[in-house]
Amino acid sequence: MPPVQAMQLRLAGFDADALCLAAPLAANVNDKGCAFGGSLTSVMTLAAWALLSMRLEDAGHRADVYVQDSSVRYLAPLYGDLHARAWLEDGQTWNEVLDAFAAKGKSRARMVAEIRDPTGTLCCTFSGRFVALAPRD
Amino acid sequence: MPPVQAMQLRLAGFDADALCLAAPLAANVNDKGCAFGGSLTSVMTLAAWALLSMRLEDAGHRADVYVQDSSVRYLAPLYGDLHARAWLEDGQTWNEVLDAFAAKGKSRARMVAEIRDPTGTLCCTFSGRFVALAPRD
Repeated sequence: MPPVQAMQLRLAGFDADALCLAAPLAANVNDKGCAFGGSLTSVMTLAAWALLSMRLEDAGHRADVYVQDSSVRYLAPLYGDLHARAWLEDGQTWNEVLDAFAAKGKSRARMVAEIRDPTGTLCCTFSGRFVALAPRD
Repeated sequence: MPPVQAMQLRLAGFDADALCLAAPLAANVNDKGCAFGGSLTSVMTLAAWALLSMRLEDAGHRADVYVQDSSVRYLAPLYGDLHARAWLEDGQTWNEVLDAFAAKGKSRARMVAEIRDPTGTLCCTFSGRFVALAPRD
């Protein structure tokens, strides 16, 4: 994917409950010398998308995962590399998400993500709805 | 700005009420062959940011414009070049936005944007709050 390549995105860690993506500031800097809002949103969206995709794959499912909507709050400028962490929003369980997909070939999940600066200050938050669909073929 | 360069963004038109940005699909394509959600959001955010920035500049103001939050809905996949159109959300006037900045060196605006495919189908919508601040120096 050209835009992901341009952002120089890399997987920075994951376990069953969270996934982290990282990208260097230099490739994602804006006119003010801090991280570009579009890159912040992209990295959070992709971290959430990747976690849902990986959990489905780990459960043995083939699925196409789509983002349906998202809300982002920009709280503080980030003058450092981008580190986004994504997880399943409270109120749902992975068992519910995976069981729904197994039963119907379709599942919805609300994912959240955040980016903090090196001192731990919260720079932006993401909340988005995703849908996973079994491939048509 | 490296991420904007990577998206191959260009100004596609503007007047007092709206601004359009365009970007080629090839530089913004995802794993499914349609436009990458991060690029869709970035182009809409930048179109809104650019319109507010240009209106302030046209009125003779020096301002730094920041996005504070945004909501995006992804309605249909886009298998073509990205054309985003942004304008001031209903309920505010440019006079109010510009007068507030002239009086206080600070102004808030809620902007909206959308991307349609070549047949006119609405692919995604954006709504976001921006703040314009006089530079400190």
